[in-house]
Amino acid sequence: MNYDLIVIGSGPGGYVAGIRGAQLGLKTAVVECADLGGVCLNWGCIPTKALLKSAQVFQYLLHAETYGVRFDTSTLLSAGKLSAHDTVKADLDAMVTRSRNVAETMNKGVAFLLQKNKVDVIRGFGKVKPNKIVEVKSVETGETTEYSANHIIIATGARSRELPNLPQDGEKIIDYRKAMTLRKQPESMVVVGSGAIGSEFAHFYQSIGTKVTLVEFLPQIVPAEDADVSAQLSRSFRKNGMKIMVDSSVEHVDTTGDLCKCTIKTKKGEEIVEAEIVLSAVGITTNIEHIGLEETGIELDGTKIKVDEFYRTNQDGYYAIGDIVHGPALAHVASHEALVCVEKIAGLNPHAVNYNNIPACTYATPEIASVGLPEKKAQEAGHEIKVGKFPFTASGKATASGNRDGFVKVIFDAKTDEMLGCHMIGDNVTEMIAEAVVIREKNIKAYEILSAIHPHPTMSEALMEAVSVAYGQAVHL
Amino acid sequence: MNYDLIVIGSGPGGYVAGIRGAQLGLKTAVVECADLGGVCLNWGCIPTKALLKSAQVFQYLLHAETYGVRFDTSTLLSAGKLSAHDTVKADLDAMVTRSRNVAETMNKGVAFLLQKNKVDVIRGFGKVKPNKIVEVKSVETGETTEYSANHIIIATGARSRELPNLPQDGEKIIDYRKAMTLRKQPESMVVVGSGAIGSEFAHFYQSIGTKVTLVEFLPQIVPAEDADVSAQLSRSFRKNGMKIMVDSSVEHVDTTGDLCKCTIKTKKGEEIVEAEIVLSAVGITTNIEHIGLEETGIELDGTKIKVDEFYRTNQDGYYAIGDIVHGPALAHVASHEALVCVEKIAGLNPHAVNYNNIPACTYATPEIASVGLPEKKAQEAGHEIKVGKFPFTASGKATASGNRDGFVKVIFDAKTDEMLGCHMIGDNVTEMIAEAVVIREKNIKAYEILSAIHPHPTMSEALMEAVSVAYGQAVHL
Repeated sequence: MNYDLIVIGSGPGGYVAGIRGAQLGLKTAVVECADLGGVCLNWGCIPTKALLKSAQVFQYLLHAETYGVRFDTSTLLSAGKLSAHDTVKADLDAMVTRSRNVAETMNKGVAFLLQKNKVDVIRGFGKVKPNKIVEVKSVETGETTEYSANHIIIATGARSRELPNLPQDGEKIIDYRKAMTLRKQPESMVVVGSGAIGSEFAHFYQSIGTKVTLVEFLPQIVPAEDADVSAQLSRSFRKNGMKIMVDSSVEHVDTTGDLCKCTIKTKKGEEIVEAEIVLSAVGITTNIEHIGLEETGIELDGTKIKVDEFYRTNQDGYYAIGDIVHGPALAHVASHEALVCVEKIAGLNPHAVNYNNIPACTYATPEIASVGLPEKKAQEAGHEIKVGKFPFTASGKATASGNRDGFVKVIFDAKTDEMLGCHMIGDNVTEMIAEAVVIREKNIKAYEILSAIHPHPTMSEALMEAVSVAYGQAVHL
Repeated sequence: MNYDLIVIGSGPGGYVAGIRGAQLGLKTAVVECADLGGVCLNWGCIPTKALLKSAQVFQYLLHAETYGVRFDTSTLLSAGKLSAHDTVKADLDAMVTRSRNVAETMNKGVAFLLQKNKVDVIRGFGKVKPNKIVEVKSVETGETTEYSANHIIIATGARSRELPNLPQDGEKIIDYRKAMTLRKQPESMVVVGSGAIGSEFAHFYQSIGTKVTLVEFLPQIVPAEDADVSAQLSRSFRKNGMKIMVDSSVEHVDTTGDLCKCTIKTKKGEEIVEAEIVLSAVGITTNIEHIGLEETGIELDGTKIKVDEFYRTNQDGYYAIGDIVHGPALAHVASHEALVCVEKIAGLNPHAVNYNNIPACTYATPEIASVGLPEKKAQEAGHEIKVGKFPFTASGKATASGNRDGFVKVIFDAKTDEMLGCHMIGDNVTEMIAEAVVIREKNIKAYEILSAIHPHPTMSEALMEAVSVAYGQAVHL
C-alpha cells in the first residue's frame, strides 16, 4: 500500500499531522501501537485534569461551610461528633473511573476525527526502513506489513524516565501512568521530582488526604519556573499539609517492608522517609528504540532526532516532530510542529515555530502558567529589566472566589518595553496566559497593554495591573 | 479648602480618578455620601461574584458523586432515604454574610489605597456650584461645607431604574441591592429583565433551589449578546429548571396576597405567574439629580452628561466620567475613563478610550464574555464575514472539568481578516476574553492568532480553534 504521508504515532503531534495532511489532499495513514491520542490524551494531560477536578470538588466540599453551604449533618459536626473529613470521602476508585471515562471520550473523539478526515489508522508498532518504507508489526499476531510513503513523520513521543536508584516495579515504585490508575488511595506517598507531573500528582494526592512528601533535587520546586512562583507554590502546598524537600535526592528505596523506606540525601545529611508508594516523576525519555533509526541512517542529537526548522531529518522524506525532537516536550508544541511540518510538505509556506514563546502550565492549586524568561534568566541574559507583580490578595474577583493565593508577575525590557516574561500563579491562570503569548508574539508594548480594557471583575485584570506596577502607574496596589 | 482636583463619587470611576490624580501630583479629594468603592464594589460586581461562587460550590456538592466524591450518608442516599438535596443545604444567610464580608474587605482596600496615596476623603453628598465650588452636605447633620478646586470630576454613577408598573417596595418587589441581602431564601422568584444583572440573580437563586421565572421584553435573553450565546444560555438555564419567558412584559404585579401575582403579557396572550419575590432588573438610571447640574449650566444629553473624548463638559473645569456619561455602564469603562480624564488634566497625552473594544461579562453558569459585534450586527454593518465556532464539547479541558456547555465564536471581516467580534459562553470564559480585546486593540490578523501557541489542555485553545474553523483549517472539529 502506498501513501503520500505516513505518521508513526497518534499523539497530539501524530494525529494532528495526519488530519492536517489529509485536509491538504495527501493520502495519509497514522500508525499506532497503543491508544489513539497518545500519552497526552490517554495517560497525560487529559486524565490528570479530570483527577485534579475531582480533587478540587473534594476541597470545595471540605470547605463548603466557608461558602455558606452546609450538610444536614451539621448538627453532628457542630457537636464535634463528626469532622468534615468524616462526612466527605474521596473515592479514588470513582475518581479514576471518571478520569478513564474522560480519556475514553477524547480517545473516541480522535478516532472520529481521523475517520472523518479519511486518515487510515494502521494498528501496530511502526518502524522506518530505507527507501521510505514503514514496517508495521501487529501487537497481537507479531505479523509485519510494509507500507510505502512519499513522506514519513516520526512522532513516537516519550515515556517516563527511569533512574537506577528508583527502579519502577509498578507496585511500590510507580510512574505517572500507574499513579493515575491506583484504585486504592495510599495513606502516604513520596513523589520524586517536582516538575509539572510531579507537582500535579503531589497536589492531587495531598488534596484527597494522602500524606505526601515532595522531593526535588534542585533548590526549588517547579524548577523551570520563576523563583517567586516556586516560593508561592511551596507556601500553598505546605499550607495544605505537604512536606517539601528541596536540594534533596532519593538515594535508595527499600521496598522489602510494608512501607517503602526512602533514604533521602539532603544538605543537612541523610533522612529516612517512609511511604506506602513512591512515585518517580523525574522526567521523560524519548521513544527512539527499535523504530529503525539506525537502519535508515537518521541522525540523532543525544536522545533526540536532529531536525531543521521544518522537521526534516538528515534523510530526505523522513521527518520527526513532538517529544522526540528538540524543544519542550509539550502537547501544544507537538501539535504546532505537526502543522508546520505537514504544511511545508504540502507546499504551503508556514511560519516556523517560535520556541521563545511557548507557554507552560502546571494544574495544581494554585495553578501555574508562564511564558518567556524568569526574572533571573532575564537578568543573566543581560537585559535591563522592569518588574511588576500584582498579588491576587488585591483582586476583587479572587477575594470573591475565596482563592487569593498567587500573583501575576511581568518582566519587561526597560529599554524596549517588550515583555520578556510573564509568570502567573493562582486560580484559573492557565486560562489567562494565552493573552501574554499573543502580547509577546506581536511584540505589544507595555503602554499598549494598559490601553486594552480588561473586564472587571476578573483575575485577568491582574496582568494589566502588573504592567502598571512595572511602570510605576499602579492604582490598585 | 482648595484642591487641585475634587472627584464626586468614589466608585470605580471616582476612586481611580482620585488615586491617579494624587499620583500625578494633584492635591486631591474624593467626596462620598455612602460606601467607598461605590455600587460596583459594595453592591454590584464584587458581592454578586461572592454569591455566585457560593452557588457554584453548592452545585459542586449536589453533583459531587459525579466527580468521585461521596458523603458518608451515601448508604442512605443509595437506599433512596435521602436525596442530595436533602443532604446539602444552601444557607442563604451564610452566603450573604460571606458576600458582605468580601465587599467589606474590598471597601477597606479602597480606603487604604486612598489614604496611601494621600487622597482626602470628604464624607457627604457632593454638589457642584458655579466658580468651581463643590458643596458637601453631611449625611448625618445636614451641615454644608464648600470646597474649591481647579478641576471637578462628576462620577456619581447610577442606580436601579424603576418602571411604573413595577414599583419597588423593597419587600416583595425588590432591586438588585435587596436581592443580594435577602436573609431568607424565597421559594419562588420572578426576575424581570435578563441583562447581566437579571441573568446573574436568576441563575444564583435557581442554583440554590429557588423556582425562578426569568422574563425578558425582547426576543432573546441577554439581549446585547450574540444570538447563539443567548440560545446556549437559555438551554443551560432551562436544563437547570429555570422558566424563561421572552417577548414578554410584566404588566402588573398584585402584591396584596401572600404571593406576588404577576400579570405577564406574552405573544400568546396574558399569563399569570405567582412568586414570593419579584426582582426588577430593568436597567439603570443615572444619578443626575440634586448635584447642581442646572446651577452650573452643565449640558445634558438625555439623562447623561455630555462630554468630549477627554470627559470635559461644556463648563470649563467640570468633567464627568462613568455611568453618568455615554458608553456602556461598566466598572472597567469608568476606571479607564478616569485614567484618561485625569492624565489629560495633569498634562499628559493619554489615548482616548476605544469604545469599540469594550468587553462585557455575565457571571452565570455558563459564563458569558464578549467583545465587538455580534454576528447579526456585523452583517447589518455591511461586512462580508467569516464565522467560526468551536464547541466546548470538543475540548479536552472542558470534558475533564465536567463543564462542556458553550463555545467560542469568532467573527472576522472576510476582506481584512480583522476580528469583528468574539463571543464566548462556558466555564471561566470571563478570564479568556482579554486575549480577544488585545487581538482587536492591535488589529491582529487571523493567521497571526493561529501562530500564537495556546497551552494544552485549556479552554483558551477554543479561541484558536474557532479561528481555524472560520478559515477552514479546523483539525479538532
